[in-house]
Amino acid sequence: MPASALAAASRLASPAPEDRLFAEVRAHVAALPQSGIVEVKNYGAGREGLIPLWVGEGDIATPAFICEAAAQALHGGQTFYTWQRGLPDLRGAIARYMAGLYNIPVDPERFFVTGSGMQSIHIAFTMTLAAGDEIIIPTPAWPNAAAAAEKIGAKPVYVPFTSGPAGFSLDIERLAAAITPRTRTIFINTPANPTGFVASHDDLRAVLALARKHGLWIVADEIYGRFYYGDEARAPSFHDIMDADDHILFVQTFSKNWAMTGWRIGWLEAPPALGQIVENLVQYSTSGVAAFMQRGAIAALEQGEPFVAEQIARARHGCDLVADPLIATGKVDLVKPHGAFYLFLSIPGHDDVRRLALQLIDEANVGLAPGTAFGPGGERYLRLCYARGEAQLKEATARLVAWLDRQPAP
Amino acid sequence: MPASALAAASRLASPAPEDRLFAEVRAHVAALPQSGIVEVKNYGAGREGLIPLWVGEGDIATPAFICEAAAQALHGGQTFYTWQRGLPDLRGAIARYMAGLYNIPVDPERFFVTGSGMQSIHIAFTMTLAAGDEIIIPTPAWPNAAAAAEKIGAKPVYVPFTSGPAGFSLDIERLAAAITPRTRTIFINTPANPTGFVASHDDLRAVLALARKHGLWIVADEIYGRFYYGDEARAPSFHDIMDADDHILFVQTFSKNWAMTGWRIGWLEAPPALGQIVENLVQYSTSGVAAFMQRGAIAALEQGEPFVAEQIARARHGCDLVADPLIATGKVDLVKPHGAFYLFLSIPGHDDVRRLALQLIDEANVGLAPGTAFGPGGERYLRLCYARGEAQLKEATARLVAWLDRQPAP
Repeated sequence: MPASALAAASRLASPAPEDRLFAEVRAHVAALPQSGIVEVKNYGAGREGLIPLWVGEGDIATPAFICEAAAQALHGGQTFYTWQRGLPDLRGAIARYMAGLYNIPVDPERFFVTGSGMQSIHIAFTMTLAAGDEIIIPTPAWPNAAAAAEKIGAKPVYVPFTSGPAGFSLDIERLAAAITPRTRTIFINTPANPTGFVASHDDLRAVLALARKHGLWIVADEIYGRFYYGDEARAPSFHDIMDADDHILFVQTFSKNWAMTGWRIGWLEAPPALGQIVENLVQYSTSGVAAFMQRGAIAALEQGEPFVAEQIARARHGCDLVADPLIATGKVDLVKPHGAFYLFLSIPGHDDVRRLALQLIDEANVGLAPGTAFGPGGERYLRLCYARGEAQLKEATARLVAWLDRQPAP
Repeated sequence: MPASALAAASRLASPAPEDRLFAEVRAHVAALPQSGIVEVKNYGAGREGLIPLWVGEGDIATPAFICEAAAQALHGGQTFYTWQRGLPDLRGAIARYMAGLYNIPVDPERFFVTGSGMQSIHIAFTMTLAAGDEIIIPTPAWPNAAAAAEKIGAKPVYVPFTSGPAGFSLDIERLAAAITPRTRTIFINTPANPTGFVASHDDLRAVLALARKHGLWIVADEIYGRFYYGDEARAPSFHDIMDADDHILFVQTFSKNWAMTGWRIGWLEAPPALGQIVENLVQYSTSGVAAFMQRGAIAALEQGEPFVAEQIARARHGCDLVADPLIATGKVDLVKPHGAFYLFLSIPGHDDVRRLALQLIDEANVGLAPGTAFGPGGERYLRLCYARGEAQLKEATARLVAWLDRQPAP
């Protein structure tokens, strides 16, 4: 479904706009789609015992050592305006962390603290897109990226993943065919939400070659890079194949690795030559991130490895816990993903997934997100987040399996 | 000086851009001006004993009861995704606070929590401006508003205040003359940074009449509304004269009243019919504000009145402490302001204020902000923030008076 149809569909579910005011808001802004998960969440709100697997976050609160570092800084008076690019201490800690993980030089000038991965996307898009420009987004995808482009007046051009027995894959020829003279940017999320797609080094090389050939920017959302279930310690990254002066802006966040979704803190990685532009865009949108939060982020990077390792092991286990029994029913189409922490599954005979998501609330008391929220190619799917504890996942899986068992063969 | 000239001037002071990358960032974004205070701050960085009066914040850390409320929520696990419009508890607390202060109905649906007053401006401008649109901004003004409009590709149209023996005043005829078919929005900051201008009810009525006549939005930045040195408890507000369905978006922040500059939390007030649009714009830019921070904000609103009263009394006293001795020298042009917490002064014979600001660092060890940072009409001025303790203000004043005494008559 094109974004405008999505917007129209979700607008119907919203409270009736008071027309005069709505009409006087800039049209492309008034037309932004509501989050496609909200309707389902609202429908399930307050259901006793409902297991919510619709949102992209775990069930573990931020570890105490991170909270403690932030609270100490807060009590210690770190409540004044601070560096727009981030505390030098935090930029240094990020640079060391990234150097260790990706085998790149330690260069704090490449890293800019932002008020969330979402803000990193927003800044990267503001740098590279203007009204009328096009950005290519493989889908199904986390919908906020397309919406952030639309907010600028740019046009998302969707390139659906190919779906096959090995799961979702990126069709480079389709990607190349989508490039027009208006294309400015390619958005690549790997490992990907919601599909679990993980780009191979060959995929990344092919995308980079296209970007170089056509003079395009790449915005690389690698926030799930460590939630990777292959043999290596992390997923393939543009860092492995790029030159220092390639036009790649990396989106990162503290949300997933360190269970800090609610904090709203992330970073943008960009060539240092663009530092003043990034600083200006932070200055003129939110004017920085609380210093006391940044102290928590430093603790996360410097003391968080055991926690991250636990999180990843838990997700890997969670994936098996849910996916294996569901696949064993023979009633779902599902390929176990190699990364991120979502299952993206379909149930043959149940193609109206918005309706299905509501039905599963009523009949299984499990909350899943309808794939319609994730753009073209997602229309037959449901997204399930398995970044949760064993007991809850087992219970949710049992409920889903029992529900599936009750369905007639399609 | 037009914004482009400001941008060009500040760009000269920046590290030389690596051209290829710069050239491939969207032009209106690459051209955004660097904050005009930064050069002076960098020049003074590390000077022993320098008294910094250049930034718009006080010298008091956030009160302990506010920090405590946030820290408790943080330790209590309020670290997950939360409402995009803000915690219902906080929206309720804001609504009650505003109802008490402005004698309006309690309506939580009018209030949207944002990640700073700056983000409120950004959202308000995104709603009302697109590329090519014009926004009218009386100047001298806090420069971030114009820059936020330029970031969208809109054009700030500056209307200089009239400066006279009673201070700065708004020339409604000039404002009316600046309206063109492209005008969409009028930005009104009252009490104003940096001039201390306070709009009268007649001023506000005149602006509102213009907006109604031409179908324009008003973005009202009333963040200094309580830093008012008239007889009433607060400055005149659009709330006093508007109808419920007027097209006014209010910008607010926790930064100034509650000494929370570094937190980055504020709110936007908008007609409830626009709620879904505001929610979407939060969702697709930063995706909300940390719940634990919002708990601190609730404490600020519900227990902060004694602190706010102290802050305002201190600022009123600080204004006298600095302004009276400076005026007594006979060597400065300065009218005591009626609101906000800045002096905007000029020193006849010293018209190159960028140079003067650097000179005052060298020769008086006091940091002031050059008026060139604040747009047309500010070229001969310096901004001094007096939201500081008595001892520092007295010492800074003594230094400035001694420096003035050493200058030959112009």
